Amino acid sequence: MSQPTLDVVAIGNAIVDVIAQTDDAFIAREGLSKGAMQLLFSTEEAEALYAKMGQAVEASGGSAANTVAGIAALGGRCGFIGQVADDQLGEVFRHDITALGVEFTTEARSGEPATARCMILVTPDGERTMNTFLGASQHLPAKALDRDLIERGAILYLEGYLWDPEEPKAAMDHAIDIARTAGRKVAFTLSDGFCVDRHRDEFLELLDDGRLDILFANEDEIKSLQQTQDFEAAVEATAAKVPLLIVTRSEKGAIAVEDGTRCAVEAEAIDRLVDTTGAGDQFAGGFLMGLSQGRSVEDCLAMGAVCAAEVIQHYGPRPEGDIKQLVSARLG
Amino acid sequence: MSQPTLDVVAIGNAIVDVIAQTDDAFIAREGLSKGAMQLLFSTEEAEALYAKMGQAVEASGGSAANTVAGIAALGGRCGFIGQVADDQLGEVFRHDITALGVEFTTEARSGEPATARCMILVTPDGERTMNTFLGASQHLPAKALDRDLIERGAILYLEGYLWDPEEPKAAMDHAIDIARTAGRKVAFTLSDGFCVDRHRDEFLELLDDGRLDILFANEDEIKSLQQTQDFEAAVEATAAKVPLLIVTRSEKGAIAVEDGTRCAVEAEAIDRLVDTTGAGDQFAGGFLMGLSQGRSVEDCLAMGAVCAAEVIQHYGPRPEGDIKQLVSARLG
Repeated sequence: MSQPTLDVVAIGNAIVDVIAQTDDAFIAREGLSKGAMQLLFSTEEAEALYAKMGQAVEASGGSAANTVAGIAALGGRCGFIGQVADDQLGEVFRHDITALGVEFTTEARSGEPATARCMILVTPDGERTMNTFLGASQHLPAKALDRDLIERGAILYLEGYLWDPEEPKAAMDHAIDIARTAGRKVAFTLSDGFCVDRHRDEFLELLDDGRLDILFANEDEIKSLQQTQDFEAAVEATAAKVPLLIVTRSEKGAIAVEDGTRCAVEAEAIDRLVDTTGAGDQFAGGFLMGLSQGRSVEDCLAMGAVCAAEVIQHYGPRPEGDIKQLVSARLG
Repeated sequence: MSQPTLDVVAIGNAIVDVIAQTDDAFIAREGLSKGAMQLLFSTEEAEALYAKMGQAVEASGGSAANTVAGIAALGGRCGFIGQVADDQLGEVFRHDITALGVEFTTEARSGEPATARCMILVTPDGERTMNTFLGASQHLPAKALDRDLIERGAILYLEGYLWDPEEPKAAMDHAIDIARTAGRKVAFTLSDGFCVDRHRDEFLELLDDGRLDILFANEDEIKSLQQTQDFEAAVEATAAKVPLLIVTRSEKGAIAVEDGTRCAVEAEAIDRLVDTTGAGDQFAGGFLMGLSQGRSVEDCLAMGAVCAAEVIQHYGPRPEGDIKQLVSARLG
């Protein structure tokens, strides 16, 4: 097998974010679960929520896509696989990820449903509450997997959100096989506490079967995975099943456990919290770029913290500032 | 004739902005005129530039639409007339302006061309260079004018950009007639120095015929209108032809001349210049809201300055902060 030519190849939902400011009263009135992601299954439901939202801004998003966007901004070489429709927002998604130098070979799907949209409501405390209409994204078929692209990536990175729709879930199993056969690492993010709740058994099975090399989670997600309120117990139980576990803890920083050895990083100081959208995605991006550069786990954590701090100080889920320079300033 | 029930009704191009960061080298390489707006006439030209641009963010724009968005954010009652296509970006435009409480009754146009897009390149100094593909916007027909809506507005506000395409230009003449017959004021913005260059004779004719009550311009535009490099001479010559002239001067503030009496305001202090897109539009919005509230011209200038200062401290052409509160803090 030849050497990998890409740092990371990610597979994820191809989503355009629709971001609007709101207040806690709106979240409560709509019966939304603040800070979480919920799926909207009907076009009517999606349109009804959109009609109630204030003026918005559109930006390419999608969890794993945001992560490779961050890695590309750090100078990494990436590929992405995800399903868009043949429409204006699909073009926007393709433009943005391609403009970053990410290889995106998945062909657009014609006809309905439209490109996926995630309506993100940002409250004054910077927290985002996400409402996703999966659209075309839920139809990523196994045949759309670009085997060559997956084999070229040193790390295959998958998002837990892909387990929600049937077609991509099936494709993921196949993608993991391709990567493992090629001798690549497989990284996975649990995505969201409620997502873990929906697919706990399958996620635990992936861990038990040793199909994952690297696992990203936040506090909510890892507690949901292990069905405990005891954070330390959840970390211990999970770390036993994966070679490298990373848990982000918002303003408390992040920890990593590699083969039983634990280290931690504090959160970076910020001037102003604007919008937490993309914080976890960019943390993962910084961390994976560090891994790809052969850095220590401690330095990888620091890179993740720098990238997360940048993205939460502006609206939108991808870096706007020069994160490469920010990382250099932090690590030298 | 009944009393107006709306503060401002605006007619303008209905455009979605596509905003990306760039550098001066890119502007030079593409042969663009920094700080100006140029029209892209072919889809190929628009697509070629889009392909070269970096990752972007989409936000509803359009000069006059931004102005009414600002007035609505200040608590004003507004209407808007402009042409979108029956597509995703048209829906985005309609959603955003409607979400602000602006009455928008113009029906979407089916088929090609698509909803207008303006590719805005923001350089590190915060200056924006605009590249507009007018799309559906250039097909606003006179029959799309909502006579009742125009008659209900105390002020009809028009953008000079509408003189670029043939169909809206003809519609504007008709709109001015409707407003004047109903006893309403007509306000106009010169939009852009190059736009003035393209339509100087027609703009001067509007002034000479006494069809405008209020004129907004910046330094470039008024000098282009009077074909002089002498700012004071341009102000004098123009003020003689319109009851109320407002000229914005970027970091030097703004002046107004009403029936021969001149007053001025300094620019508001800002923390950080991010993106000048929308500065003139929001200045006009603040000023017109003040007029509608029966404030002095000096206070109207101050309101314009506050609104312009807010919008240049973030990406995007419409207010994000609570400008109503900012105005209160400034004027009491």
